[in-house]
Amino acid sequence: MTRAYNFAPGPAALPESVLKQAQADMLEWGDAGASIVEMSHRGPEFMEVATRAEADLRTLLGVPDDYAVLFMAGGATTAQALLPLNFASDGDTVDYVVTGHWGKTALRQLTPAVRINIAASGEEGGYRSIPARESWQLTPGAAYVHVTANETIHGVEYRPAWGAVPPDTGDVPLFADFSSSIASEPIDISRYGVIYAGAQKNLGPVGISVVIVRRDLLARAGQPRADIFNYSSHLANGSMLNTPPTWNWYVAGLVFRWMLDEGGTAEFDRRSDEKSALLYGAIDGSGGFYRNEVDPAVRSRMNVPFFLADDTRNAAFLEGAREAGLIGLKGHRVLGGMRASIYNAMPVEGVRALVAYMQDFQKRNG
Amino acid sequence: MTRAYNFAPGPAALPESVLKQAQADMLEWGDAGASIVEMSHRGPEFMEVATRAEADLRTLLGVPDDYAVLFMAGGATTAQALLPLNFASDGDTVDYVVTGHWGKTALRQLTPAVRINIAASGEEGGYRSIPARESWQLTPGAAYVHVTANETIHGVEYRPAWGAVPPDTGDVPLFADFSSSIASEPIDISRYGVIYAGAQKNLGPVGISVVIVRRDLLARAGQPRADIFNYSSHLANGSMLNTPPTWNWYVAGLVFRWMLDEGGTAEFDRRSDEKSALLYGAIDGSGGFYRNEVDPAVRSRMNVPFFLADDTRNAAFLEGAREAGLIGLKGHRVLGGMRASIYNAMPVEGVRALVAYMQDFQKRNG
Repeated sequence: MTRAYNFAPGPAALPESVLKQAQADMLEWGDAGASIVEMSHRGPEFMEVATRAEADLRTLLGVPDDYAVLFMAGGATTAQALLPLNFASDGDTVDYVVTGHWGKTALRQLTPAVRINIAASGEEGGYRSIPARESWQLTPGAAYVHVTANETIHGVEYRPAWGAVPPDTGDVPLFADFSSSIASEPIDISRYGVIYAGAQKNLGPVGISVVIVRRDLLARAGQPRADIFNYSSHLANGSMLNTPPTWNWYVAGLVFRWMLDEGGTAEFDRRSDEKSALLYGAIDGSGGFYRNEVDPAVRSRMNVPFFLADDTRNAAFLEGAREAGLIGLKGHRVLGGMRASIYNAMPVEGVRALVAYMQDFQKRNG
Repeated sequence: MTRAYNFAPGPAALPESVLKQAQADMLEWGDAGASIVEMSHRGPEFMEVATRAEADLRTLLGVPDDYAVLFMAGGATTAQALLPLNFASDGDTVDYVVTGHWGKTALRQLTPAVRINIAASGEEGGYRSIPARESWQLTPGAAYVHVTANETIHGVEYRPAWGAVPPDTGDVPLFADFSSSIASEPIDISRYGVIYAGAQKNLGPVGISVVIVRRDLLARAGQPRADIFNYSSHLANGSMLNTPPTWNWYVAGLVFRWMLDEGGTAEFDRRSDEKSALLYGAIDGSGGFYRNEVDPAVRSRMNVPFFLADDTRNAAFLEGAREAGLIGLKGHRVLGGMRASIYNAMPVEGVRALVAYMQDFQKRNG
């Protein structure tokens, strides 16, 4: 089979031009005599790659100068563990708004030295909506408020139809897990204290994550912790406190450059509107053959979970999809059913092909 | 320039056949319709890669069944932070034997809830030797004793000429950082409690590390900690507690397979003897033009730091080396001078070429 349209939730599809560049560079980096994956992270070749990647990411996201950008090994879960260690003192309260699986997972990463306040949770409603901002029970003087910008499994995203985004948290800094929606639209970073994201959805390959942090917050003492868990140490060492995942960083840089070349976040915002409207339209217009249960005000533009009315046909749906060159559609085990992840690297043609297949499958099985 | 002999300390040279395989696989994995870097870590394709990599590593290193093998994002420094969190309780003493830069760095990763005992240190002597086992001030009932099997910067390695290796620590489990010497010779893993290694020297690409832990130790309560810092949680989830660095894992697996095909650790032991003897022989036979200051009993077979008597010629040495197709020889900023890292992927021909260049450089400058 040739390359399919890949709807996997992450690790996810990368732009083909990025993969081709990585392929071309695999044995030799320019005239350096070695592959980029074999070279010192402190040598001039990789330093140039790293510096350019940060500059491109700053341009892409419009990161203000008073925010630091860190490239870290591992993913968002590690960031979730480092937030309280770096930004909360003993006995501080941290406010969490839980709108899906990953927001709940974040609670398991908290140090026992902090008090956890679940300011709002969508769990009772099966995470099909996001509690209205007015209902949130925030703690005055909390160390921070944590939200998940987009829930990859439940397909729930803070969208303007829900209310003001980002939600206002007053003087308490807002920390947001942007793993699955970063760079899908322009955002005002100055409204956040910390934004973090595993790269493997919109930013690049798995194995590296990005943390964007307002510099003044790094002055907080936080908890006693290992040096490797200290964001200030990482910043002081240019994200090279230890050997960083160089190849992953390099490929992420290729993806940043690709996104800039394609038109930046404004263009991906437009494409995300188009792609998600196509797909939700097909689901809602299927007369109940397919369904998505998420409150339309907070439907994710990145991850579209959907279910067949007759779930005994799931296997046939997936098998037919594969034959049609559409892969990665199986839903997460938490929810079952299907899920189409349509990140920046998914072209609108892929979504059109999925919609055509869904309509054809319905005709044959309706 | 074509591919050079790359003496970089890590990220380091990979076998060319491995890079070629990674290159061939970059756009499509068999008939899966996507690259391995784009596929779910829980899908059948990657699960097969992951399972085979662990099986091959177990075969390569002779890992007993009562030891778990974990694949973790990031490198050895993170492991250094996780050791006390997982294996020491509040107030426990942990014994550290410091024989170079990385052993000292490990101390900065300790949680403040444990007591640190530096049982022995080579710092006063500039880390040119390893204190004799009889001089170690071990703590009865310590949570563990930590050693660095090979110090990458100082070029100091526990070798049989030093004494019994591994050093006897009685009932206290021995934890060892094997980042830069793992798989360079057969070792008796049952003599250790924990062995850990960043992959980027002998095992594969940077961005993934391997932790081999005696299963009974996982029953220890350790410190209160985030779930993502809990080795037991990683084990219970097959090293997929969060999304693992799949591409890095896959390339590491290619390297494991390559090492097995080349003859396994016994063969790399033989080659390491041959390569290191050639290089130390050239240094010692240079009449002082080059020098290595490490006690011959503990000279590393992996990392050979050396100095020119006239260090104003360093730049010329490095420039000439590069012209001769020999790269990555600049010493670490901590020591200066030169360093040749001759891991498993470095063929003996590379060392011969280096020795020939060194002799020629001396003739022209001696």
